[in-house]
Amino acid sequence: MTGDTGGAQAPLRSASRVTLDDVARHAGVSAATASRALGGGPHVAAATRERVRAAAEELDYVASPEAARLAGGPTGRVAVLVPHPSRWFFGELLEGLEGELRAADLDLVLFRVGGPEERAAFFARLPARRKVDAVVVLTPVDETEHARLASLDVAVVAAGGRVAPYPSIAVDEHAAGRQAMDHLLHLGHRRIGMIDVEDAGRPDGRRAAWEAALRDAGVGPDGDLVVTVSADGEGGADGMARLLGLRSPPTAVFAHNDEIALGAVRTLRRAGLRVPEDLSVIGIDDHPLAALTDLTTVAQPVREQGRRAGELVRAALRGELDQQAATLPTRLVLRGTTSPPAAPR
Amino acid sequence: MTGDTGGAQAPLRSASRVTLDDVARHAGVSAATASRALGGGPHVAAATRERVRAAAEELDYVASPEAARLAGGPTGRVAVLVPHPSRWFFGELLEGLEGELRAADLDLVLFRVGGPEERAAFFARLPARRKVDAVVVLTPVDETEHARLASLDVAVVAAGGRVAPYPSIAVDEHAAGRQAMDHLLHLGHRRIGMIDVEDAGRPDGRRAAWEAALRDAGVGPDGDLVVTVSADGEGGADGMARLLGLRSPPTAVFAHNDEIALGAVRTLRRAGLRVPEDLSVIGIDDHPLAALTDLTTVAQPVREQGRRAGELVRAALRGELDQQAATLPTRLVLRGTTSPPAAPR
Repeated sequence: MTGDTGGAQAPLRSASRVTLDDVARHAGVSAATASRALGGGPHVAAATRERVRAAAEELDYVASPEAARLAGGPTGRVAVLVPHPSRWFFGELLEGLEGELRAADLDLVLFRVGGPEERAAFFARLPARRKVDAVVVLTPVDETEHARLASLDVAVVAAGGRVAPYPSIAVDEHAAGRQAMDHLLHLGHRRIGMIDVEDAGRPDGRRAAWEAALRDAGVGPDGDLVVTVSADGEGGADGMARLLGLRSPPTAVFAHNDEIALGAVRTLRRAGLRVPEDLSVIGIDDHPLAALTDLTTVAQPVREQGRRAGELVRAALRGELDQQAATLPTRLVLRGTTSPPAAPR
Repeated sequence: MTGDTGGAQAPLRSASRVTLDDVARHAGVSAATASRALGGGPHVAAATRERVRAAAEELDYVASPEAARLAGGPTGRVAVLVPHPSRWFFGELLEGLEGELRAADLDLVLFRVGGPEERAAFFARLPARRKVDAVVVLTPVDETEHARLASLDVAVVAAGGRVAPYPSIAVDEHAAGRQAMDHLLHLGHRRIGMIDVEDAGRPDGRRAAWEAALRDAGVGPDGDLVVTVSADGEGGADGMARLLGLRSPPTAVFAHNDEIALGAVRTLRRAGLRVPEDLSVIGIDDHPLAALTDLTTVAQPVREQGRRAGELVRAALRGELDQQAATLPTRLVLRGTTSPPAAPR
């Protein structure tokens, strides 16, 4: 008998007369601690949790959802902080997360935290609310934001990227970038551009991979070959145009993600250049439209990252969060936008 | 002074000693009715609502959020039923909706209702929960599902399509389909195929537009020219292959949406056919990747539909829902995938 979803089952009607106070007294803890211990709340030592559970079992205690709520117990809700719900990447994370939370009868409360003003407003009023049992962040948080989250006193988990200091489910950004870069280098490219995004996260593993791969290949990275754009297709189109404007343009381009890569391909087509004959392009993600547009990419399991983050939340609410992070694998998907560089003319 | 988000403001501390029962007695109604009248709940006559509000003002009543919750008052939460959160269309609806709900300090609780089993499970347990103040459906609901929603006794609003009998924000599906079809007919196409989706909604306005446009042009619609596929790019690729397998393939294709159109374009490219020289393709949506892939389409304002649905919810919670539906305009966006048919060979 646990209270982790509010304790809806009541096997014996008489048992419901035992109150949380009785359990707390029996276990020698405060009512608040007893509530958190039974509800899977944070900051309860394993031994204390065990003692409270034993007391509850001994007394045949059945939690009332309403009482649990008034005592600061579980709400059955998990807040998810999403910068851009309409982008494929975040939608996939939400799909995976929602399924896993629902299986535990937890509701997903969606909060969009996009631009700086929106973020500031959200985090400023956050501590006023004790409305959720856990928070999942799908976006980096700065120190002020972290302090606000900490004041909520609930479990915080990250997905889709590493967000210190929280347990997180992500891919290895640097390794994914190396898969893309090593493929281009293996094809014989040496002058490789990168279209990176503003605000790619700290540190920017993909950008670091671009630089490390070139150094390892004995090519001094040329800073002119990196352009920074907004994280969408129009940004990619713009970035590609800037690279084409260089005195010596690259022969291949590593785009921060597939949408940016597709924007780059449009610019190349409009410029009358052939992909991959004149210029190779590779992205990261394996967005569904990458398959439709024959884009070579590095696939990452996005929905699975959401699902696994849901598992972390469930473990945290059971007081069993031991796994601090998981790194899921990425893989190169060869399609039609990369080939060896054209012979010098 | 209203209680529509739980009544957090307390201008006078002494005022909080007045209880909901006092207000109810003063207004001559039950406490439950008084709670709903102040909380913007449904099924309260306008005159009653007015009388309760006047009583509350007279007594300087300040609602306690906790009391309101126990009395079945506002929860501050809105449930949103989404079939596929990771698809662009639904992500855009969510973005628009979230912003509008947040402006009213309402939380968005996301429920994925995708496949038949998932739907059945969700609707079966729905009535057990009095957890939200309103529901927004982004998917058609059948009669059983409607009955379940009705038992919740909260406002229900639809967006992204008409869902009888709820107030809804949508585009005119038939008119959008006509814009696409009339464009192809105007270019001179007569043998026009359609790649439609399974489960397009009842009735399927886009399919009806295909048929009506052909009839109006004096062309007897040929049933072989309609194929039905899954609602994604791979479905579109498959549908196009089926149309190319006809003894007499179409010279133009109207795809149910842009993702399907992009799938169709991939099949054509793989078959060595040029778009639009050999075959024209048009979609509906103006997905961000339509601009990147130069796809001709009929644009619909998706995020705006979400935002407007949020407005409907807010109006409903204030007890001021007079607008039963709104139809937003669509417009033809000419790009590079449509042209007059090739001269017969």
